[in-house]
Amino acid sequence: MTTPAIHRIHAASPRRRSPARAGTRSQTFVFRFDQLPEVKRTAKTWDEVKALLGGKGANLAEMTRLGLPVPPGFTVTTEACRAFLKSGNWPRGLWEEEVAALHDLESRTGKRLGDPANPLLVSCRSGAKFSMPGMMDTVLNIGLNAETVEGLAALTGDPRFAWDAYRRLVQMYGTVVLGVRDEPFEHLLAEWRARRRVENDADLEPEDLRAITARFRTIVREQSGREFPDDPMEQLRLATEAVFRSWQGKRAQDYRRAAGIPDDLGTAVNIVAMVFGNMGRGSATGVATTRNVSTGEDALEGDYLINAQGEDVVAGIRATEPIARLAEEMPEAFTELQRIARLLEKHYREVQDIEFTVERGTLWMLQTRDAKRTARAAVKIAVDLAKEKLITREEAVLRVTPEHVDFFLHPQFDPESMRTARSERRLLASGLNVSPGAAVGELAFDADTAERWAKEKKAVVMIRAETKPDDVHGMLAARGILTSRGGRTSHAALVARQFGKPAVVGVMALEVDAEKKEATIKRSSVVLREGDWVSIDGTTGEVFLGQVETMQPSLEDPALIELLGWADRFRRLGVWANADYPRDAQRARALGAEGIGLCRTEHMFFETERLPLVQTLILSRDEAERNEVLGKLLPLQRADFEGLFRAMDGQPVTIRLIDPPLHEFLPAHDTLLKQVTELETRLELKSGNAKDQTLDLAGKRTLLGAVERLREMNPMLGLRGVRLGIHMPGLVRMQVRAIFEAACICAEAGVEVFPKIMIPLVTHGNELRWEQRALEAEAKKVMAEQKRKVRYQFGTMIEIPRAAITADEIASLAQFFSFGTNDLTQTTFGISRDDAETSFLAEYLTEGILPENPFDHIDEGGVGRLMEMAVRLGRKVRPGLNIGICGEHGGDPKSIAFCHRLGLDYVSCSPFRVPVARLAAAHAALHEAKKTAR
Amino acid sequence: MTTPAIHRIHAASPRRRSPARAGTRSQTFVFRFDQLPEVKRTAKTWDEVKALLGGKGANLAEMTRLGLPVPPGFTVTTEACRAFLKSGNWPRGLWEEEVAALHDLESRTGKRLGDPANPLLVSCRSGAKFSMPGMMDTVLNIGLNAETVEGLAALTGDPRFAWDAYRRLVQMYGTVVLGVRDEPFEHLLAEWRARRRVENDADLEPEDLRAITARFRTIVREQSGREFPDDPMEQLRLATEAVFRSWQGKRAQDYRRAAGIPDDLGTAVNIVAMVFGNMGRGSATGVATTRNVSTGEDALEGDYLINAQGEDVVAGIRATEPIARLAEEMPEAFTELQRIARLLEKHYREVQDIEFTVERGTLWMLQTRDAKRTARAAVKIAVDLAKEKLITREEAVLRVTPEHVDFFLHPQFDPESMRTARSERRLLASGLNVSPGAAVGELAFDADTAERWAKEKKAVVMIRAETKPDDVHGMLAARGILTSRGGRTSHAALVARQFGKPAVVGVMALEVDAEKKEATIKRSSVVLREGDWVSIDGTTGEVFLGQVETMQPSLEDPALIELLGWADRFRRLGVWANADYPRDAQRARALGAEGIGLCRTEHMFFETERLPLVQTLILSRDEAERNEVLGKLLPLQRADFEGLFRAMDGQPVTIRLIDPPLHEFLPAHDTLLKQVTELETRLELKSGNAKDQTLDLAGKRTLLGAVERLREMNPMLGLRGVRLGIHMPGLVRMQVRAIFEAACICAEAGVEVFPKIMIPLVTHGNELRWEQRALEAEAKKVMAEQKRKVRYQFGTMIEIPRAAITADEIASLAQFFSFGTNDLTQTTFGISRDDAETSFLAEYLTEGILPENPFDHIDEGGVGRLMEMAVRLGRKVRPGLNIGICGEHGGDPKSIAFCHRLGLDYVSCSPFRVPVARLAAAHAALHEAKKTAR
Repeated sequence: MTTPAIHRIHAASPRRRSPARAGTRSQTFVFRFDQLPEVKRTAKTWDEVKALLGGKGANLAEMTRLGLPVPPGFTVTTEACRAFLKSGNWPRGLWEEEVAALHDLESRTGKRLGDPANPLLVSCRSGAKFSMPGMMDTVLNIGLNAETVEGLAALTGDPRFAWDAYRRLVQMYGTVVLGVRDEPFEHLLAEWRARRRVENDADLEPEDLRAITARFRTIVREQSGREFPDDPMEQLRLATEAVFRSWQGKRAQDYRRAAGIPDDLGTAVNIVAMVFGNMGRGSATGVATTRNVSTGEDALEGDYLINAQGEDVVAGIRATEPIARLAEEMPEAFTELQRIARLLEKHYREVQDIEFTVERGTLWMLQTRDAKRTARAAVKIAVDLAKEKLITREEAVLRVTPEHVDFFLHPQFDPESMRTARSERRLLASGLNVSPGAAVGELAFDADTAERWAKEKKAVVMIRAETKPDDVHGMLAARGILTSRGGRTSHAALVARQFGKPAVVGVMALEVDAEKKEATIKRSSVVLREGDWVSIDGTTGEVFLGQVETMQPSLEDPALIELLGWADRFRRLGVWANADYPRDAQRARALGAEGIGLCRTEHMFFETERLPLVQTLILSRDEAERNEVLGKLLPLQRADFEGLFRAMDGQPVTIRLIDPPLHEFLPAHDTLLKQVTELETRLELKSGNAKDQTLDLAGKRTLLGAVERLREMNPMLGLRGVRLGIHMPGLVRMQVRAIFEAACICAEAGVEVFPKIMIPLVTHGNELRWEQRALEAEAKKVMAEQKRKVRYQFGTMIEIPRAAITADEIASLAQFFSFGTNDLTQTTFGISRDDAETSFLAEYLTEGILPENPFDHIDEGGVGRLMEMAVRLGRKVRPGLNIGICGEHGGDPKSIAFCHRLGLDYVSCSPFRVPVARLAAAHAALHEAKKTAR
Repeated sequence: MTTPAIHRIHAASPRRRSPARAGTRSQTFVFRFDQLPEVKRTAKTWDEVKALLGGKGANLAEMTRLGLPVPPGFTVTTEACRAFLKSGNWPRGLWEEEVAALHDLESRTGKRLGDPANPLLVSCRSGAKFSMPGMMDTVLNIGLNAETVEGLAALTGDPRFAWDAYRRLVQMYGTVVLGVRDEPFEHLLAEWRARRRVENDADLEPEDLRAITARFRTIVREQSGREFPDDPMEQLRLATEAVFRSWQGKRAQDYRRAAGIPDDLGTAVNIVAMVFGNMGRGSATGVATTRNVSTGEDALEGDYLINAQGEDVVAGIRATEPIARLAEEMPEAFTELQRIARLLEKHYREVQDIEFTVERGTLWMLQTRDAKRTARAAVKIAVDLAKEKLITREEAVLRVTPEHVDFFLHPQFDPESMRTARSERRLLASGLNVSPGAAVGELAFDADTAERWAKEKKAVVMIRAETKPDDVHGMLAARGILTSRGGRTSHAALVARQFGKPAVVGVMALEVDAEKKEATIKRSSVVLREGDWVSIDGTTGEVFLGQVETMQPSLEDPALIELLGWADRFRRLGVWANADYPRDAQRARALGAEGIGLCRTEHMFFETERLPLVQTLILSRDEAERNEVLGKLLPLQRADFEGLFRAMDGQPVTIRLIDPPLHEFLPAHDTLLKQVTELETRLELKSGNAKDQTLDLAGKRTLLGAVERLREMNPMLGLRGVRLGIHMPGLVRMQVRAIFEAACICAEAGVEVFPKIMIPLVTHGNELRWEQRALEAEAKKVMAEQKRKVRYQFGTMIEIPRAAITADEIASLAQFFSFGTNDLTQTTFGISRDDAETSFLAEYLTEGILPENPFDHIDEGGVGRLMEMAVRLGRKVRPGLNIGICGEHGGDPKSIAFCHRLGLDYVSCSPFRVPVARLAAAHAALHEAKKTAR
């Protein structure tokens, strides 16, 4: 074999294969584990290897190449699978290659398939490029028949083991290869257990198992019309075919659709010599991670069982032992395992998740792959690996995802409590982890119940087959959402993420009967009923029975702080925060914010003591009354701003002048209309105290009149923002006075202040010209009165298409821009978010009409083009114009990357998103640097 | 004088005057009428001449140059005025020039200023570049004093005439030059008339007039502290100065602001030898137009008076004679006048408005200018002049404005009835003609009264000093609007144009006292009170007392038809119509439409028999019920489309699928809420028939629930357009079926059909991909069923910013674009038209924050840039893409010009706007051709 395998892998691509090499096709469908060449392992070549051999096959070959104890075996490539699925037949030469590889296997093991004296047994496992756990098929113990089973019994001295293995082969073969239902097999086993009064199949006698196997063969014949094949070669051939076919199974297809895996990849098939952890006390089997994947602690972590098979560990039928005990029970194997673990980590530069078996004292590695981990572990591991110089700091930063950081903001299950739940077999099923966080609650099968219970202060988890817009009120009331159908962009997933509700969707093992208010776990006897407690983990996708304890992770995590410090050095974007109150500003600053990008002054107006003043202001029709109210509001606003300036000493504070339509400060129209109508009817019917009612009615009518005057057909597009400022100049003038009085007072006290006054909803340069002139005059007046000058800027939001289109004119006036991408998205799309997210927008997302929710991620093709235009036009007129974003997208990693590419100066987000944004901004810069390097 | 005057006029511009020519400055401030050179009279040079000499001075000089009998005189230039106003003093050399010109005048007339034996009298009249009728000052009869008055009496043998002239000079001089109020003079005259029991001042005896003149001089001295100057040179100097100053008078400034005339032009002063039409039966004075300016008929038209002064004709104190009678009374003068009229028309290539005086048999021309005319006359005159080869057809088309064509759509006053009103001195005043059409009604001084009266079926004209948003309900209820203040962009003007209400604003002669409900006409004794009948002409700006008869002009006018035929040959833009019903389509086609650019299918749903079906459709929650309703709607819609196709045989018919939010088809929410609340209260109080009420309540509650489910915060941005089509696919599928069934039936009957199916409110290419695929499938299905193929297209509205921004992707799917500029303006500006036009938008327009209403004229800087982008991106992907506009801007001439420049294929507007659009499209093409030629 002189040609490096990786080159052959390339050559195997149909487009590259030259006619001259057609004769050597025998090299292209099957690869032995020891055929992987010594090539530079880059992300790209490794990706190609995995695409051809599947993840499992690639890693088995890699471990073989590293000289680790992997049972001999070979991989039938994904290309073979694709060719098979395309034509429905075995591609020419494949079977011959497989047979040749098998013979090689026989010569290495010294055993032979079907040899009663020394039978070779092999497993036949699926293994696609991307992990699809449990979605495709596996057949173990291939090679057993009436003769070899006796040979195995003799060879191992363990007839119970040999017959159980044979029984398993017949059952697996029947269900997987011949499509027989599992029930008759399980029914028969249950009968025998009952007859022998034992708990487990393993406690049945060899004779029982022999009888059962005979009956299993009958079941196979009766149900499939075909005989269980005694010829091991036929077993192998048909098993290979079945694994190929399982790629097209409904379960696998559904999974791929949900997980976003392409349909045309195909699966590889791994044929491996069987090793047994259940050959007595000297044998064992286990799973481990090279570090603790819950906490990130640097210690081998896992579980094993003496004298058991791999599936026993996972199934949790027997209580497992912690891996540390293996040091006592099998010290040599444990030392070897530790050495291998360390070696694998070094080699893969990543924590590994491994499977092993000890067969009569000999350690065999059955699998390795990058370990899944909790967010907390991900952060600690990345930092530790960087400190150990296994990876660079840049890599460490890139290995932690914004979602990992986000995790620190959501309650999570306590790892101990989860372990307990697992060991108590309360892990019911897994689904897609579509909205992070942990939720514990009683199951409600419909939205109305969920809502009612929530009102009764019950903790509710809402369960549905899938959700629809009608369910939204229930979803909002629930602590968490659980569905049996739907993928990452299903209605349930979207709504859950939207409102930050933990959710697990697409739990395929779950069958929900909304009518009966029952959910059954397939392949188990568990039935969930209304009111049953469940715990769902939206971070991992796991569903537990009962209550798992939760804990609030802390952002104080030292590893996180260290990692974010590294991130700060890599990023170019500033990270500011949206904060309306001093306490928010303090929190934001503690989390790393470098300024306030948005203070919504109107939020201050909604406070209890102020709202009546604001209402008086709105309802007053004479100047004197208005001025009196403004006089009362001034000191309150000034105190607000003082607090903000002190909290942000030395950093910019962007204050947006009043924005929302006035009716938001008044009582709801419909309530008033109902009250007035009721009072009118009562008066007409002379019911109750007429005098009081008349008085009440008059007041209510006045208020209703005012509300109706201010009412708008489309308030989103109405009298708000700068329009309000121009319409009611006194109010914004008061705000500017408050800002500058506060700034002067703080400056006097030695605080370094830098107010940036932001005028919202500008559409036309003239609005800014008018408003800015008036307000800057007031600012100068205050500074003259206070005999102090403070640094300040006037700027504007870019949140209306016209502002973006005419950004050149606007930049001639504004000293800074801040994108209000919520409103900009609404107007660019002509979509009212309030209405759409519970109606057609959800429909659009589930149907794929919109690829993603433009309110979650900036719509780069539309809204983004307007932003790009605004940046270009603005900086053309005012080079170096300071530009940021303060819409909700400012905290979304994908949008942050876009803002980085646009050349924005900063993103501003809610205080808790600041750490996420710091990391995302660093990612954006690092990805750019990588791209430039290429 | 060897240098042609036009060159000197150029040289007179301060920037061009070289120091070497400073000595010749005496030539630059004053021009004699006979100094205008023979230069090629282009629009540009003529404009320069008018800018320097004023309109009146330029035309007097031009007539002099043509050899017409103009009394000798000269013009003090606008430059002199500007210099005077700038420094407040006479510029160096001006007076010397004026004196020299006067001496020249003396030598030509053989008379001398101040010579008792043969006194020269001159007038001193303002005359700016743009006509500002009555806004600036005039002093006549300069040159009279105690001595010359006797000379004049002797010379004319008419002491009454001489003393009346002197009396007038003193009065005019006092008021104009010395700023004395007019009342003491008029009071004195009234006293004398009473004493002598005569009606008119002219009937007073010479001795009376002598006594009055003496008293007038006393009044002048007492009121101004200055003596009336006896020195005629001083009279001339001070009168010149007064005319200069009158440019800065408040009246003149207000007028300029309203009419959009720049403030820095200054006025010229014309000093002309007086000629008198009141020197006995051989003298006369009159005004005429060279053609009939009401009808356009080719005949001299005007009025004159024997033995009268010009002002007598205008003032209407004596009944005038029609000009035709002059042929009998003064045949020679008449013949000469006719000859001159024809000559002037030929020279100016335009109908002229002339003033003349016959002094003892000699005809003198006192003024000529382009005649104002009615729209009807404008069209006929333009067509006639082209036929007479005086102008080209292109010029004819350009001379008729879209407003002229628009006139044919509004009721107008009957010219006869107007003439009568004028002769009865019922023409009260004039203002700005801001919204065309005639309105007759009773005066209401406030909006509530206007509204109440309108409800009582009274015809109302609402009168205000100026209007505010609070007045809008009254304005909408009124037939017409009349204000004393405000300009072309005042609130009143905007609202009136918006709603097509005739309006005259800025009537400065009017003083409105809303409290007293009285309006007085300044300088007259007329007082208008609530309920008085008035007639206002929004086309001319005139206000009449009483009821003037109206007539509906007809679009059948042959001249108009001919002119529009010419226009059609010049334009490049197609003109299509928006029509929802066959009758509209027929009308549109008769008016020249070349296709239907927008059929709003939902309008058909609002018809009485259909609305209940549509409501059932919306409320039904099951498929079967929905299908049943759709089955009933199908034949109705099919019949609609059949009618349209037949009406438009051979032309394209663009049908927009259902667009508005569903709640528009349901009862109003607030009404239902009131009803439900009232019923609930009644039931609670056990009033009335409980059983019936319970039943009623249940029904109302169900309906209210449905309405609330469909209710949206911002319906403009909600579930409508293509979103609705995707959400409720059955409804649009039915519409497409109806379209294609109708098309097949019509095609079968030999009608040439070309349906263009238009999908509204598209935001993302995927929407179109989804919807078009489904609907085109239905279309093909119908054609297969009907065994017929018809030509058709699927296209989309571009009415959301994102659609314009991503027009390339959209054009890859859509076969045509149609701009919906109403919605595009709303979303690009973030302005809800319904709300804004009665609130901040009006404020923005009056304050000048927006230069014009973007819903009237396309906002070229914002919305227009998006349109340009859509055209460019769309045609990049699909060259030759058919693009039109169907928003209301499609009927606005300014927007049509913009659409022409953008390269659109057609504009579509309401049927009645079609003729306007045809003309505007021709204008756009002709202006472009002119520009290209330059």
